[in-house]
Amino acid sequence: MIYNDTIVALATASGAGAVAIIRLSGKDAIALASANFKSVTNNKKLVNQKTHTIHLGHIVEGTRVIDQVLVSIFKNPNSYTGEDVVEVSCHGSVYIQQEIIQLFLRKGCRMANPGEFTLRAFLNGKLDLSQAEAVADLIASDNEASHQIAMQQMRGGFSSEIAKLREELLNFASLIELELDFAEEDVEFADRTQFKDLVERISFVLKRLIDSFAVGNVIKNGIPVAIVGEPNVGKSTLLNALLNEERAIVSDIAGTTRDTIEDELVINGIGFRFIDTAGIRDTKDVVESIGIKKTFEKIEQAQVVVYLFDADVISSDDKKSENIVVEIEKIKNKYPLKPLLIIANKIDKLTEDKKQSLNSILSKVEGSQYLSISAKSGEGVENLKTQLLNFVNTGALKNNETIVTNTRHYDSLLKAFEEIQKVKYGLETGLSGDLMAIDIRQALYHFGEITGEITSDDLLGNIFANFCIGK
Amino acid sequence: MIYNDTIVALATASGAGAVAIIRLSGKDAIALASANFKSVTNNKKLVNQKTHTIHLGHIVEGTRVIDQVLVSIFKNPNSYTGEDVVEVSCHGSVYIQQEIIQLFLRKGCRMANPGEFTLRAFLNGKLDLSQAEAVADLIASDNEASHQIAMQQMRGGFSSEIAKLREELLNFASLIELELDFAEEDVEFADRTQFKDLVERISFVLKRLIDSFAVGNVIKNGIPVAIVGEPNVGKSTLLNALLNEERAIVSDIAGTTRDTIEDELVINGIGFRFIDTAGIRDTKDVVESIGIKKTFEKIEQAQVVVYLFDADVISSDDKKSENIVVEIEKIKNKYPLKPLLIIANKIDKLTEDKKQSLNSILSKVEGSQYLSISAKSGEGVENLKTQLLNFVNTGALKNNETIVTNTRHYDSLLKAFEEIQKVKYGLETGLSGDLMAIDIRQALYHFGEITGEITSDDLLGNIFANFCIGK
Repeated sequence: MIYNDTIVALATASGAGAVAIIRLSGKDAIALASANFKSVTNNKKLVNQKTHTIHLGHIVEGTRVIDQVLVSIFKNPNSYTGEDVVEVSCHGSVYIQQEIIQLFLRKGCRMANPGEFTLRAFLNGKLDLSQAEAVADLIASDNEASHQIAMQQMRGGFSSEIAKLREELLNFASLIELELDFAEEDVEFADRTQFKDLVERISFVLKRLIDSFAVGNVIKNGIPVAIVGEPNVGKSTLLNALLNEERAIVSDIAGTTRDTIEDELVINGIGFRFIDTAGIRDTKDVVESIGIKKTFEKIEQAQVVVYLFDADVISSDDKKSENIVVEIEKIKNKYPLKPLLIIANKIDKLTEDKKQSLNSILSKVEGSQYLSISAKSGEGVENLKTQLLNFVNTGALKNNETIVTNTRHYDSLLKAFEEIQKVKYGLETGLSGDLMAIDIRQALYHFGEITGEITSDDLLGNIFANFCIGK
Repeated sequence: MIYNDTIVALATASGAGAVAIIRLSGKDAIALASANFKSVTNNKKLVNQKTHTIHLGHIVEGTRVIDQVLVSIFKNPNSYTGEDVVEVSCHGSVYIQQEIIQLFLRKGCRMANPGEFTLRAFLNGKLDLSQAEAVADLIASDNEASHQIAMQQMRGGFSSEIAKLREELLNFASLIELELDFAEEDVEFADRTQFKDLVERISFVLKRLIDSFAVGNVIKNGIPVAIVGEPNVGKSTLLNALLNEERAIVSDIAGTTRDTIEDELVINGIGFRFIDTAGIRDTKDVVESIGIKKTFEKIEQAQVVVYLFDADVISSDDKKSENIVVEIEKIKNKYPLKPLLIIANKIDKLTEDKKQSLNSILSKVEGSQYLSISAKSGEGVENLKTQLLNFVNTGALKNNETIVTNTRHYDSLLKAFEEIQKVKYGLETGLSGDLMAIDIRQALYHFGEITGEITSDDLLGNIFANFCIGK
């Protein structure tokens, strides 16, 4: 064990609940808990109990009884941190939580820093660095896709892929460095053909992981969708129609209600962030121009653009129809590569005649997908969901492939890829072993950064500072 | 066991934390958890594990892994509810909490009603009714005094006092009812002198408990203190000065911050609620009159009245000095029995001369306590705290006596007291045994209401509906 002190923190969400968990970790955790615990069973002492057992009693300070609690004992190395760990399950009032934490602070514990339990787990070899980072991602996950990625990373899917490549590369590095010792004899311990194969394979995997970051990043943060549309075309009704169904799932579970962020929603486990924008008609008005400039900025950030308009208006007013076609063309010209989805809303109001004129207008806009919906009646909304999901490359997710979501990993992978390209070039051009060995060592270094074989205090500080306290 | 179904709920505070606890209780709790749990140890099944043990593994649904968790097993009757109980400690994201709860709902659990775990504990004889009520009080406790009272009640202090009296009374009731069977033989099984003693003793205890309600109630809800004072006399500064010290205790514990209710504070473990009011000078202005009427209403609700004024103003302005004396006299005349504390603030600004003129003014107000303080520098603030605490009758609290805080208990105690007075009168007037037996039965009934020997579904519904879900 690396640390000499014992830390304490509230592990459950802040505020009052039925129960709260206070967690202690460190060499004195069990002794400290034992000294302030009176079992309901006569003379039972926590210090004499087995690991992974639970004990009913009272947290006491002298004659003062603070609370009736359950105490769980985890003995090193069989605990989350790898140290001795005690979890006190107390009544969930904020007052009681504080009293118990303060008691342990007085008795010699130190308040845990953010992420310190997980940091200790990493330093004690219970988790590698990318697994530790996945713990924070897991706690922050708010939809199925981000949860699945974090879960896979925490279970070591990503690390084991990297670690395997690293080991193979390390093997070749050793052989090549061995050649250097026998330089005058001109031997080749490392089979160049096999080595070329390995480098190709590593390049391929790195490329795939690097490419997965684009998907991983949007899944982690939600896919940005810009909705371009004038007021009153039915945007709110549409969002509600999309949300309603998803909300129903959680409606009868009390205590899970969160503040609603109107424009975020999850469709089939994938998060979407809807960005509201104004229309983009031509104008001479200075103020309106600024608004349009902002619209373009928002479209720039989006991964999908949805153009929503009121079908009832378009089909009865030729001038408005034209305007809409002009707007759509403008977006298409400015962002030829961005997926654009055109939605005609309020089709429940249309007669058959009007529907035909709508279709003739939409047919003028070539090469874009369009949908007719009624946000009010729900007609076409399922279709819209399918279309939105189609824009997301969920192939990797479905096939349970490793997806990179962490910028730090992405960065190291890019650097490792760069070094591997150098090695590859060196192999092709017959670069000398000593120079090639340097590039291989660099690549190995970047692999090690991901799993935490190579770390600095600064790096660890940065990573764990973003954790919540108690984890 | 009374219930056939298995319930599930989040037991920790809502929102995201490092960990969250999901609690299951009922006959299928362990089987359901076992069927959806894959231990990290090969082939380990939860159904085969001992009570009070903890197991590391994953919550799974088919091939889908929802989370890595710790599962705690409690076998009936050795659990909180007296049924089989499973606690799942999962990563604390709201998404994961929901997924696990929904999984168990799909598998046949029912969402627990508010307080249902504790209701089951009561119905299974793990707690009596007043202990069950104390659980809710304990979770709601936000200061030392209310916590101490709830803790004492939960540990059975109150119930055992009532239960003991009830048993003694029941004993006499049986003897007197036995006499009725031998009515013609004119025997006295129940020793009338002993019985008189017992009735006296019960009267005495009931009286003490009934009286304790006044103290208990203010301790539970905070002692209302009306502050009468014009704007800018330093009320906010005073509250801050009082609060500062208390706040320092919790300042370095993250996650415990609550929204500040400016006018509530805890001094030495006792809660005070400060009620802000305007001054009460004579006025012909209609609007101002309404304000003054409100001030009087607020004073009416308060248990202590604090009159705060700016000493710097009074000593330099004779007219203002007079006004203040008039105001104080007005309060004293209107509420002769309400404790009044007069506070001269801003004495740091006063010269020695001015201090003397302040004293001569204050001496005009007979029979009231006054204090000189500087809320800004802190001078006299400790003194003020001591004075405020003196107004609270903490004798019973300090002597660890039973204090009644629950209106329902208070009500039953009053009714029991009334019946006991009838019994007492009957004994004094030589009432016949059969009539006396009716009064004794009534008294016993009200005792039973407190501890829950006598309940109705309505009563239980009312009590547990006020609990949080998960307890």
